[in-house]
Amino acid sequence: MRFGSQRRLDDGVLERDFTLGEIPGLLWTPASAPAPLILLGHPGGLRGMYPRLAARARHCAAEGFAAATIELPGGGERPRSATAERARADLRRALDAGGPVDDGIIDRLVLPLVDQAVPEWRAALDALLPLPEIGGPVGYSGGVIGIGVRLAVVEPRISAALLFAGSFVPRALIEQARQVTIPLLVLLQWDDEGNDRQQALDLFDAFGSEEKTLHANTGGHTGVPPFEGDDANRFFARHLR
Amino acid sequence: MRFGSQRRLDDGVLERDFTLGEIPGLLWTPASAPAPLILLGHPGGLRGMYPRLAARARHCAAEGFAAATIELPGGGERPRSATAERARADLRRALDAGGPVDDGIIDRLVLPLVDQAVPEWRAALDALLPLPEIGGPVGYSGGVIGIGVRLAVVEPRISAALLFAGSFVPRALIEQARQVTIPLLVLLQWDDEGNDRQQALDLFDAFGSEEKTLHANTGGHTGVPPFEGDDANRFFARHLR
Repeated sequence: MRFGSQRRLDDGVLERDFTLGEIPGLLWTPASAPAPLILLGHPGGLRGMYPRLAARARHCAAEGFAAATIELPGGGERPRSATAERARADLRRALDAGGPVDDGIIDRLVLPLVDQAVPEWRAALDALLPLPEIGGPVGYSGGVIGIGVRLAVVEPRISAALLFAGSFVPRALIEQARQVTIPLLVLLQWDDEGNDRQQALDLFDAFGSEEKTLHANTGGHTGVPPFEGDDANRFFARHLR
Repeated sequence: MRFGSQRRLDDGVLERDFTLGEIPGLLWTPASAPAPLILLGHPGGLRGMYPRLAARARHCAAEGFAAATIELPGGGERPRSATAERARADLRRALDAGGPVDDGIIDRLVLPLVDQAVPEWRAALDALLPLPEIGGPVGYSGGVIGIGVRLAVVEPRISAALLFAGSFVPRALIEQARQVTIPLLVLLQWDDEGNDRQQALDLFDAFGSEEKTLHANTGGHTGVPPFEGDDANRFFARHLR
């Protein structure tokens, strides 16, 4: 991991660019160190997502958590996958047609992404956890929910996850969700037009965790109410302290 | 309304018995007055429910809210309804048989209860709101969810409601839920064996409120996690202040 430029934000949070091999990333650390780390999931495209990621990271820092994220395969400047681009176009067509979305499309869109991203997030953990500013258990927060599900199954260093159920999930990952046992907070936008609500509920049902909570709200895909940020902090405070 | 005995609880909350005609009730007021009032819903039987109601009321008082409740028709010492008793026995049989529950049973069990209880809760509001210790908007919190739904439709003095989706709801009330417009927090126990999860989700979907939030948790009918008490206080703090 190589650190690039850094900035001290006005609330005392230190924001640093880094690269992990070819993968760009961002790390935010609060003044209080060492801090438990929360990995911030997102749909890809760090530059476009920056304002929302930075806001979430500063909200984490206000509760004493560090936060970090890396670019997704195919996101930002990273090489596109022709398979994923085709699947994305197929998905758009299916949604525009208002019909059901074929499982094959979701599999082609999400499974290769999960297969490639999860080892990268684990490598990011390998690089981040030895930093003196980082200490304690790790959380995952956000989407892509398929990545969060797989990470929750295969990565024992993740102790709790807030999963944003804002994208389609391959059936294979719903099956894999039964193996998840860590505490979960699943966030669902009830009226998210680009998502399958029933599938999100099936996924929530499938999780094997003894403590799992679903928060569903109105407001559309990007309309998660601000109070959910506070709820997220309290969820992680319960499980990462 | 006639007040009976009263006690000062060790956290400074004043607990008073009252009767409204033949209906017994309880009022809890915090030291800080006047306080917004939260009506505490319950399944009937104030004596058996007392420990949980008092705990909820003291939790409300810690956030500066007064709380009150009255006995339900057929609950505690109040006269039983033969129709309701028969419907309850039919429901138990249907649940024991593991089959679907006939709509007619739910209608016979819940609709007369709602029809009788709602005017009583409104009369309780008439009696409670003029008290000098009470001031500001009113919330409803708890079950029976059918009573909460009807109150949210017909009682304009209720500004926000936390509805416990822990009992069957007649279809007529799901239809009526479309008329509800106040902010809602709906609490669902995901693995509540004596409840119909899909019906609870249909009810949540039907509510016409612009701000509605569903919190679903594991733990069975009586296993609502303690952190939901804090979430409830924050919900009411947002809407009753």
